[in-house]
Amino acid sequence: MPPIITLTTDFGLQDEYVGVIHGILAAQAPQAQRIDLCHTIPPQDIAQAAFLLQAAAPYFPLGTIHLAIVDPGVGSNRKLLAIRAMGQIFLGPDNGILTPFLHDRLFEDAIVIDCPHLYLAPLSTTFHGRDILAPVAAALANGTDLSSLGTQALKENLTKLASPTLQIDRIHGNIAGFVIHIDHFGNLTTNIHQRDIAGLTTDPASIQIFHKKQQVTGLANAYASLPDGQVLALIGSRGYLELAVTNGNAARILGAVVDDPVRVKRGKIS
Amino acid sequence: MPPIITLTTDFGLQDEYVGVIHGILAAQAPQAQRIDLCHTIPPQDIAQAAFLLQAAAPYFPLGTIHLAIVDPGVGSNRKLLAIRAMGQIFLGPDNGILTPFLHDRLFEDAIVIDCPHLYLAPLSTTFHGRDILAPVAAALANGTDLSSLGTQALKENLTKLASPTLQIDRIHGNIAGFVIHIDHFGNLTTNIHQRDIAGLTTDPASIQIFHKKQQVTGLANAYASLPDGQVLALIGSRGYLELAVTNGNAARILGAVVDDPVRVKRGKIS
Amino acid sequence: MPPIITLTTDFGLQDEYVGVIHGILAAQAPQAQRIDLCHTIPPQDIAQAAFLLQAAAPYFPLGTIHLAIVDPGVGSNRKLLAIRAMGQIFLGPDNGILTPFLHDRLFEDAIVIDCPHLYLAPLSTTFHGRDILAPVAAALANGTDLSSLGTQALKENLTKLASPTLQIDRIHGNIAGFVIHIDHFGNLTTNIHQRDIAGLTTDPASIQIFHKKQQVTGLANAYASLPDGQVLALIGSRGYLELAVTNGNAARILGAVVDDPVRVKRGKIS
Repeated sequence: MPPIITLTTDFGLQDEYVGVIHGILAAQAPQAQRIDLCHTIPPQDIAQAAFLLQAAAPYFPLGTIHLAIVDPGVGSNRKLLAIRAMGQIFLGPDNGILTPFLHDRLFEDAIVIDCPHLYLAPLSTTFHGRDILAPVAAALANGTDLSSLGTQALKENLTKLASPTLQIDRIHGNIAGFVIHIDHFGNLTTNIHQRDIAGLTTDPASIQIFHKKQQVTGLANAYASLPDGQVLALIGSRGYLELAVTNGNAARILGAVVDDPVRVKRGKIS
Repeated sequence: MPPIITLTTDFGLQDEYVGVIHGILAAQAPQAQRIDLCHTIPPQDIAQAAFLLQAAAPYFPLGTIHLAIVDPGVGSNRKLLAIRAMGQIFLGPDNGILTPFLHDRLFEDAIVIDCPHLYLAPLSTTFHGRDILAPVAAALANGTDLSSLGTQALKENLTKLASPTLQIDRIHGNIAGFVIHIDHFGNLTTNIHQRDIAGLTTDPASIQIFHKKQQVTGLANAYASLPDGQVLALIGSRGYLELAVTNGNAARILGAVVDDPVRVKRGKIS
Repeated sequence: MPPIITLTTDFGLQDEYVGVIHGILAAQAPQAQRIDLCHTIPPQDIAQAAFLLQAAAPYFPLGTIHLAIVDPGVGSNRKLLAIRAMGQIFLGPDNGILTPFLHDRLFEDAIVIDCPHLYLAPLSTTFHGRDILAPVAAALANGTDLSSLGTQALKENLTKLASPTLQIDRIHGNIAGFVIHIDHFGNLTTNIHQRDIAGLTTDPASIQIFHKKQQVTGLANAYASLPDGQVLALIGSRGYLELAVTNGNAARILGAVVDDPVRVKRGKIS
C-alpha cells in the first residue's frame, strides 16, 4: 500500500500555506496518499490539535506519517520531533502537540530532527512546516529510516501537555471531568472515557450526568434518541462521554465552552 | 481508470471526521481517487445535500461511488442504502438524501446495506459513515458487487424528500417556484429549470422574474452583464434559473433565504 | 513524476463547484495529482488570488499546471489564457489574475485558449472553470502541447493588475509600501520585500517600521520573539516584511486592513 501522510494544522484555509505543503509532498513523494485531517485548529491551540490527532490515529494503518503543525514557537529554539508510536510516525514541534503518543502504551521511539540536507533552502525562520517537516515526511514516505533523521531523544525530556485532570471516586461513585472539545455539531466531548464509566458501574442506564444546571440520566444510543431539542448523553464516536441535543447544537443551547466541568454520578443499584 | 469516491457531508471542517473517512478509504482502496464534494452542508440539512449531489453527479464518470452522509438518525433503526443510478453508485442513509436518484429516469437498483463482515469493529452507534459506509465504499471500489452488500429494496419503500412544488400554468404563462439554494456568491438558485422556461415561451428575453418587490425582465447571459450592483436573472451552471447581482451578493442585497417564492411570467409576444 | 494540477478559486466550500472540477480532472487525467491551493479568495478579488498564486508557485515543480479561477467576467468577451512561466503553466481569465507571471523575469509564452473540441458540451456561459479550464488542464496533464490550445498572444496585450506602488527613497532611507494581504493568523504581509530592505541598509536591526500609530524597531527572527501580545516585524515565509503579534492577531489588534500604508525608515548607522 502506498504510504499515507496526514496534515493537521492551524493554518486555516485562506492562505496558500496548506497547498504549498501538499506541493512539496506531491513533488518529493508522489506515490504517497495525502490526507487533510484538520486545518482549522484555533491558532496556537496545541491541545485541540493533540486531541484530534489522538482521535484520528487509530483509524490509520501502520506506517502512516502524521504532520502536526501548530507551531507558535517556530524560529525559536524549540525542537522538532519525529515520534514513532502505534506503528505510525508523528512529526511536529516539541511543544506538547504529540503528548498523546508519548503514553507508555503507545510510544516506541523519539528522534529530535536534525537532517539539514533534507531541508528546503533558504530555510525560513517562520515556516518550518514547509521547509523542514514536509521534506522530512516525504523522505520517510520514500523509505528513509526514522533513526537517520536526527538524534534519539529520551521520552522524559520531551514537552508534555498537562492533561485536564479526571477525578474518579469509585467509593462514592463520582467522576469529575471536563469538556475538552466541542465539535462542528455543537456536541460536547468530555475527557470521561467509556472505560471510566464502565469502571464506575455496571448499570450505565442509572448514571446521572451534570453540566452546569443541566442534568441527564442514563446514556442514549443515538443522537436522535430523544425528541428534537432535548439534551442527552451518549458515548460518542471517539469513545468519550458526550453531551448532545437531538437535531440541535448542545454547545449553544447549554452555553458550553471547552474546560467546563462535567460530573458523572453512579445511580442507585436497581 | 481508477474508481472515484466522492464525499458529501455535514461534518464541517473543524473535526477529524472527514479525515478519518479518507484514511479508511486510503487504507482499504488506495487506488481510488477521493474527492470532497462538500462538507459544509448545514447540520442535518438533507435537502441541501441532495441538491448538491444531484447537481454534481452528471459531471462524474460511470462507476463513481458517492458517499452522502447527512445522517441525523444514525444509531436509530433507519436503514443505509446503496443506490445505483445513472451508472453511478450512491451510498447514504434512507432519509431522503438520495431522493434525486430514485427518479424513474435515473434509477437502476437499490440495496439495503447489510454486510457486517465489512463493518469496522467495534461498530459505533454514532458514526456509521466511518464504521459502515466508508468500508462499503472501499469494497465497491475494489470490485465487490453491489448486490452482495445486502438485500434488494423496492424503490417505492424508500424515503423520499417532498420536492418544493413547482406550479406551471402554461395557459396564463406563469411559473411559481422557490429559491432552493443560495451559493457562496449569494446567487439564488431556484427550482425553475431552463426546460420549464423553454416550455412556457420561445422568447425568454420577454419573461419577467419576481422575487419579493424585485422585478427583472429577460435573461442575462453572464453574471457581469449589467453594471455592478444590478440585479439580473440567468440560467446558472446547474441549469436552473438564478437571481444574481453583478459583482455583488444577491442574497444579501435582496434579503433572500431558501424557500422564498420566485415567480416567472411570460411576456407579451412581440 | 505524475503532473500536478493546483486549484485557486473564489468558489468557497459550500457548493459542489470545486468538487465538480476535481471530478472532471480525476476522470480525464487520473494520473495527475490534484492540489487545492485556496478556495476562499474573497469573491471577485483577483488581486488576492494573484498574490497567493505568486507566493505558492516557487514551491511547485517544473511542469505544474495551475488553475486560477476568479472570473467575474465569465460569459462576457474576456479571454481565457494559458501562460507558461517559470517552467510551469498557469490557466485563468485575462483579467489580471496571472499578472505575476507576465513579469519579464518569469514569462515564457502566452496562448489565448481556443480549442472548442476540448470543452464540455453544452458549454455554459456561467462556469468556464468547469466547462473549459478543467478539460484544458487535463489535456495539458495528458501531454497536449500548450501551443495547440489556441493562438499565441502578445504579452503586451494582456490585462495586468496595477501593482500597489512601492516608493523607495534610498537617499533619505525610506520605503513607503502597503499591506497587501492579511493571513489566517492576522499577520500583515506588506509589498516590501526583504530585497528592498537589504537595498536600503546593511543594518536591518536599526530600521523603524510604521503602521498607523504603531512603531516597531528592527526585525525579529520569529513570531514568538517577544512576550505574548507584543507587535513585531519580521520577514515572513513569502519573503516580504510582515507585522505580527506574538500569539495574537495583528490585524485585529492594529485595526489593519489591506491597503493600509506601511513605512520603513533606515536607522542611524550605529
